[in-house]
Amino acid sequence: MCVFCKIVNGELLADKVYEDENYLAFKDINPKAPVHVLIIPKQHIEYLSDIDETNKHIIGDMAVIANKIAKELGIDKSGYRILINNGPDSGQEVFHIHLHLLGGKKMAFTV
Amino acid sequence: MCVFCKIVNGELLADKVYEDENYLAFKDINPKAPVHVLIIPKQHIEYLSDIDETNKHIIGDMAVIANKIAKELGIDKSGYRILINNGPDSGQEVFHIHLHLLGGKKMAFTV
Repeated sequence: MCVFCKIVNGELLADKVYEDENYLAFKDINPKAPVHVLIIPKQHIEYLSDIDETNKHIIGDMAVIANKIAKELGIDKSGYRILINNGPDSGQEVFHIHLHLLGGKKMAFTV
Repeated sequence: MCVFCKIVNGELLADKVYEDENYLAFKDINPKAPVHVLIIPKQHIEYLSDIDETNKHIIGDMAVIANKIAKELGIDKSGYRILINNGPDSGQEVFHIHLHLLGGKKMAFTV
């Protein structure tokens, strides 16, 4: 079972910041910015590239949750970034789709 | 009128890679990676933070379009990243929501 599924089912602990029936959000254990939260669907989907017309609502839902968390963590005015990595060149490390929410500092745009 | 609305209505030219009734995608004029495409809704929405339950389908739609373009441009196997900047700390420069599709090289994850 993947590490994010283990967090969902309680086998692994995480510093949770949001949870509802279908989604979970927790702090990244290796943060790249003062605010670095991962938002995941509880359903195991490996890749962004697995998203199509049938399940695209998941991406919209995660964006709305990112907006909510940004407000709660006080970065809604200062600004934030959301991103999803997909596959080798992106550096995707866990193969359970996750949306990164980043903020709390002035961010560069380099890839 | 914002520069992206001018691209939508044809006042400004862009190197288009995708278009349908509600969305447009074109190459970033200042690319950060070999593949750097911007996907926008034709509707003028300033910020990711303007996305809520009523219009969240836009983010899902843009993700599906990103997957399509990644395939067409041959980066679906090598990998890619999608991201949206929101507000000052993110470096958002055009205040018309846009999803960056990045790929074609091994990407670092620094912010």
